[in-house]
Amino acid sequence: MANIKPSVPKGTRDFSPSEMVKRNYIFDTIKSVFRKYGYQEIQTPSMENLSTLTGKYGDEGDKLIFKMLNSGDFWADPESKKQKSADFTYTSKSLLPLISEKALRYDLTVPFARYVVMHQNEISFPFKRFQVQPVWRADRPQKGRYREFYQCDADVVGSESLLNEAEFVLIYKEALSLLGLKDFTIKINNRKILSGIAEIIGKPELIVDMTVAIDKLDKIGIEGVTKELLERGFSEQDIDQLKPVILLQGSTEDKLSALKKVLSTSTIGLKGIAEIESIIDYLKKLTACSLDELSLFFELDITLARGLNYYTGAIFEVKTNEAAMGSIGGGGRYDDLTGMFGLKGLTGAGISFGADRIYDVLEELNLFPAGTSSTTEVLITNFDEQAEQYALPIIKALRDQNIAAELYPSAAKLKKQMSYADDKHIPYVVLIGSDEMLSGKLTLKNMQLGTQELLTKEELIAKLKKA
Amino acid sequence: MANIKPSVPKGTRDFSPSEMVKRNYIFDTIKSVFRKYGYQEIQTPSMENLSTLTGKYGDEGDKLIFKMLNSGDFWADPESKKQKSADFTYTSKSLLPLISEKALRYDLTVPFARYVVMHQNEISFPFKRFQVQPVWRADRPQKGRYREFYQCDADVVGSESLLNEAEFVLIYKEALSLLGLKDFTIKINNRKILSGIAEIIGKPELIVDMTVAIDKLDKIGIEGVTKELLERGFSEQDIDQLKPVILLQGSTEDKLSALKKVLSTSTIGLKGIAEIESIIDYLKKLTACSLDELSLFFELDITLARGLNYYTGAIFEVKTNEAAMGSIGGGGRYDDLTGMFGLKGLTGAGISFGADRIYDVLEELNLFPAGTSSTTEVLITNFDEQAEQYALPIIKALRDQNIAAELYPSAAKLKKQMSYADDKHIPYVVLIGSDEMLSGKLTLKNMQLGTQELLTKEELIAKLKKA
Repeated sequence: MANIKPSVPKGTRDFSPSEMVKRNYIFDTIKSVFRKYGYQEIQTPSMENLSTLTGKYGDEGDKLIFKMLNSGDFWADPESKKQKSADFTYTSKSLLPLISEKALRYDLTVPFARYVVMHQNEISFPFKRFQVQPVWRADRPQKGRYREFYQCDADVVGSESLLNEAEFVLIYKEALSLLGLKDFTIKINNRKILSGIAEIIGKPELIVDMTVAIDKLDKIGIEGVTKELLERGFSEQDIDQLKPVILLQGSTEDKLSALKKVLSTSTIGLKGIAEIESIIDYLKKLTACSLDELSLFFELDITLARGLNYYTGAIFEVKTNEAAMGSIGGGGRYDDLTGMFGLKGLTGAGISFGADRIYDVLEELNLFPAGTSSTTEVLITNFDEQAEQYALPIIKALRDQNIAAELYPSAAKLKKQMSYADDKHIPYVVLIGSDEMLSGKLTLKNMQLGTQELLTKEELIAKLKKA
Repeated sequence: MANIKPSVPKGTRDFSPSEMVKRNYIFDTIKSVFRKYGYQEIQTPSMENLSTLTGKYGDEGDKLIFKMLNSGDFWADPESKKQKSADFTYTSKSLLPLISEKALRYDLTVPFARYVVMHQNEISFPFKRFQVQPVWRADRPQKGRYREFYQCDADVVGSESLLNEAEFVLIYKEALSLLGLKDFTIKINNRKILSGIAEIIGKPELIVDMTVAIDKLDKIGIEGVTKELLERGFSEQDIDQLKPVILLQGSTEDKLSALKKVLSTSTIGLKGIAEIESIIDYLKKLTACSLDELSLFFELDITLARGLNYYTGAIFEVKTNEAAMGSIGGGGRYDDLTGMFGLKGLTGAGISFGADRIYDVLEELNLFPAGTSSTTEVLITNFDEQAEQYALPIIKALRDQNIAAELYPSAAKLKKQMSYADDKHIPYVVLIGSDEMLSGKLTLKNMQLGTQELLTKEELIAKLKKA
């Protein structure tokens, strides 16, 4: 046993102290903005009943759900089943329901829907909740894709108002700005516009094929999209109609007026446009900005389609323009959020932040504030028994002033203690040697500048209180 | 499907917004004290390799570990095994290693040991880490015992100094005091004292039986303990020797001098006493208190034995005296923390806070601060389109000042909006009706006092900024 090198499961990670400080900085910033807009935190259990999760994410999703093995004698059930019917054959599929009844949550949305249904009588609607917890997916791990990762979601349920959508744009804007990002785009689209387009070209039944194809415009270009549309059952003529819409350029205002013409005979399409316009109206009032000014960070993108089968109104996606990175956020409106658990007629809308990607972007752009790496403010050295005794009342006085302070716990060489302070990014070290004990003046070393000064205990405390 | 009432798995819980605020208050308080004493946060994955966890918690513990079913075609392995050797029989035991290779963590200590060994070359020792994450146990759920619950641990590894133990006492003291608890006892014992006692009565091999029995003194009284000691192989004579030690009364000072006499011929026993004395010396200096003053919250209890097979030095347990509740914290020193993963000679010491129990105590004593239940500071009502438009710049102005503000997202009856504010514990509501729009003076209602006043937008902001 002693020689087995321990490891963590594939696709999972340890987070070191310096990583945790940075992760907390991101989570705390996002949470503070959620709270500012009236969202309240909830948490749900890591495990859900398998019946709660199964069938909510499609066949592919179901496969990626991490299932728990029943505890205790899990084989008793299959065995008794076999005894009762000899033609029962053991397969992964036939055994699963007999040996597993719980699973780890796959996202935060289905547990949230379950929560709303279970607690509907305690909840005051509209219910604005946020949730920052890990989720688990048995995906093939690769760079930037993990089997355990945090989701940061805010959702409102029980309000049709487009004010919610406008505020989601502001939440993105405020949180990303607070994190130091300067150039990002919050893209918006509306499922109803996509429905309108499919209707106009006379292929409403192909809406999913259409959007799956045009969603790839970024990656495969218009030729790739054309090819895919042909394969998916569109005619050359359909595509001639689609092309100008897909390739719409210009300001959001230009796009909207062009779309209005294209969709002039589609009720649903026009409704989608009106929703976007209403969201823009809210945004103008809530920011005191013109649409041109809003367009610095906000843009209509009618190729945007993420999770189309899910969303029924607005669709959001956020990209940073400062680093090469996929989307760092997304969301939208989904009518009938809780229908899957039998509570009909509750509409929901929500957004999510991609915390892991945001972490990588901040790291790449060097945007983590300097202070976020330190914890302890001051280390007092420990050279011998006498110095340690001398240090104890000083450490008390520092802590009485709420200064995070450590006494090196045993006598050790200066070099070792200094590298301990360095590794921990402790900004100040107090050196106590025989000179210091004689004079009553302590040496305070600034670890960043390398400077030293002699201070009385009172001066030391005053200085560190300020720092 | 629609008619199945959703539920959460047995022994797990949802946390509502008001519960989350209170839980965060406890976690944040404890974390702030950990940081003040130089402890840094880490996180480890929820899942560990089964090989990392198995065999670390005894046979009973192994049964309580939640195992993950391998993803994909988990039955392929057992099937091929069966094909290769026809006499292979399917049982829970024989199948487990074939269909499960990962499990949910059972505590934070083993993952921490695994972390230290894996990252030993990046870590600067002594390594002081804290960790606040959920753990999972397939225990029979009962009042106050859950299958998913948070542990809040601080451990130091790589330092033998008893300063660490003294600081753990201070961490308990400071955190519990910050949480508003006034009367609690941090009990200390030392495994070496227990070894010394077993040595003195000539039954060193029965130390586990002895401590298991005397640990129950609180619950079953001296008669119960006597009975159990007899059953466990002690003679009447042994018990006559033990009794005065178990029943030691008086101050910590009295107990120590009595113990010194009893253990005068036991080297290990005297070492245990010396360790306790050294911790007390540190505590006196670090608090500027006498032992009598320390005894208001700190006490030697030689019947304390929690997890004896684990601890090798100090043993801690914390009890509140204000509510009927088991221990709200515990810990101790364990030499050779990382030996289980092949890294010898690293000593560790740690403590844990029982957050769920502390929650119940604070609730019972009504100690959660009033502010901890609110999130949004002010709700602006929404009676019609015109009032909504009027409100938008006001909500902007409030948020510009970092005031958490909500506009009710659609026109609704006053009663509904007021009960929304009530349910969310929002302290202020701004009413905007036709009078207010005409005069430019807004009605601000204090929801707790029921009072109302008329304020300009500027006055409103100034007032809420102060509040």
